[in-house]
Amino acid sequence: MKVVDDKNKNLFQAVKMIKEAGKSADLVILPEMFNCPYDIEKFPKYAEESDNSSTLSEVSRAAKKAGVYLVAGSIPEREEKHVYNSSFFFNLQGEIIGSYRKMHLFDIDVPGEISFKESGTLTAGDQLTVVETDLGKIGICICYDLRFPELLRLMTLQGAQLIVVPGAFNLTTGPVHWEPLIRVRAVDNQVYMAAASPARDETASYVTYGHSMVADPWGNILAKAGSLEEIVYAEIDLSYLEKVREDLPLLRNRRTDLYQLEQIK
Amino acid sequence: MKVVDDKNKNLFQAVKMIKEAGKSADLVILPEMFNCPYDIEKFPKYAEESDNSSTLSEVSRAAKKAGVYLVAGSIPEREEKHVYNSSFFFNLQGEIIGSYRKMHLFDIDVPGEISFKESGTLTAGDQLTVVETDLGKIGICICYDLRFPELLRLMTLQGAQLIVVPGAFNLTTGPVHWEPLIRVRAVDNQVYMAAASPARDETASYVTYGHSMVADPWGNILAKAGSLEEIVYAEIDLSYLEKVREDLPLLRNRRTDLYQLEQIK
Repeated sequence: MKVVDDKNKNLFQAVKMIKEAGKSADLVILPEMFNCPYDIEKFPKYAEESDNSSTLSEVSRAAKKAGVYLVAGSIPEREEKHVYNSSFFFNLQGEIIGSYRKMHLFDIDVPGEISFKESGTLTAGDQLTVVETDLGKIGICICYDLRFPELLRLMTLQGAQLIVVPGAFNLTTGPVHWEPLIRVRAVDNQVYMAAASPARDETASYVTYGHSMVADPWGNILAKAGSLEEIVYAEIDLSYLEKVREDLPLLRNRRTDLYQLEQIK
Repeated sequence: MKVVDDKNKNLFQAVKMIKEAGKSADLVILPEMFNCPYDIEKFPKYAEESDNSSTLSEVSRAAKKAGVYLVAGSIPEREEKHVYNSSFFFNLQGEIIGSYRKMHLFDIDVPGEISFKESGTLTAGDQLTVVETDLGKIGICICYDLRFPELLRLMTLQGAQLIVVPGAFNLTTGPVHWEPLIRVRAVDNQVYMAAASPARDETASYVTYGHSMVADPWGNILAKAGSLEEIVYAEIDLSYLEKVREDLPLLRNRRTDLYQLEQIK
């Protein structure tokens, strides 16, 4: 979806698109910062507390009405003095069954091309999130998190079968990194990957790449949006995931006698 | 290079190509199993002991004469009752300055497409290899190793700036996995990657994908072969590597307070 500098318009659009997608989908995924422009000045202004959030109330109601699970992309979430880049996961009853705060903050400075410093106004989270549902085990990470193979490996080792990535890459990183990262994380971990980006808005201060997409555990792209607003659909087949893991037993073939990846908290 | 079922022919060809590449290169890389068909029955038959190896003597002499560093792809190496898939690294004097035994053995069974069980005749190695040279710090992994992000991350944390991958993907895995894996390992670790495959031989029992290639730390492909015999050249620029690491500080942004990757041995 295209995100504008007007929260009510964003919520109206999100609700409309959840309803539309819900006609055929079981799980709906919104993009990163779907209610707020991707702009560090705006994050604190748009931020809401999770237990008193008009944004979460609206999309929860829409998801319940549409009869879908919902990964509500992300929003700026306020807790006391901190603002997080947070994703909330709703079940069919519209209840929160998981949440995730972006763990790796995006600080980039490519001179003359792109400069962005999320840590200027945001605080990083420190918890992994893998949620068990009737659809399978679903992990969440957000945008820049996708660049850290350790995080996606840990979610996989905790059972994730689908990893959802609300993300807003830009025109410098998107064309060269977005699709290969999504595909290779799927291939390495033999999971489905579903990444949802805001639509491109050339007038925004941060211009997103778009191209929401879904990859299967063999790295095939099952569905792919263009740069503009669009709903894409894909089927997650857990028996195919099991077949890929059987044919090419990557997870079993890890040399855990030689290296160990451990979660500290 | 194209590998045939005749060790002397393979050595003749390797020496010829080292000489040719050495006219302009500082470092030459040969493909996986450059002296032996990629066939588990052949590995023990072609195997040599490293301190009594006609293969290593020949290519060492050729590299010294050409004035190049050489990563001699890999060969079946015998030590007592074991055969390893081993790579040897030679300096300008033709001396071995490092060696690596493939750590992850390739056992795949995609019914109706490809079945191969390296562990049928090979033993896995258990040591990482990162070699310091005048050209920079160079890590080595072999083919299936490329699928394990932990190994490449550990080499990077040990200072690798270029990771060399002799590898022989096949027509099932190659078209979908080879290039994205090489690019994403380069992007994640902000290193150069140089992967060298045997040329395709449609008459072989295991048909390789080919497409040797070099990627830079931003994931750009600098050079890429087709499927047939060919030398490709690329320039490694360590100041560009430093720039990429400065612009997008991925290695620094790892959340080592939340996860740790450790080498056990």
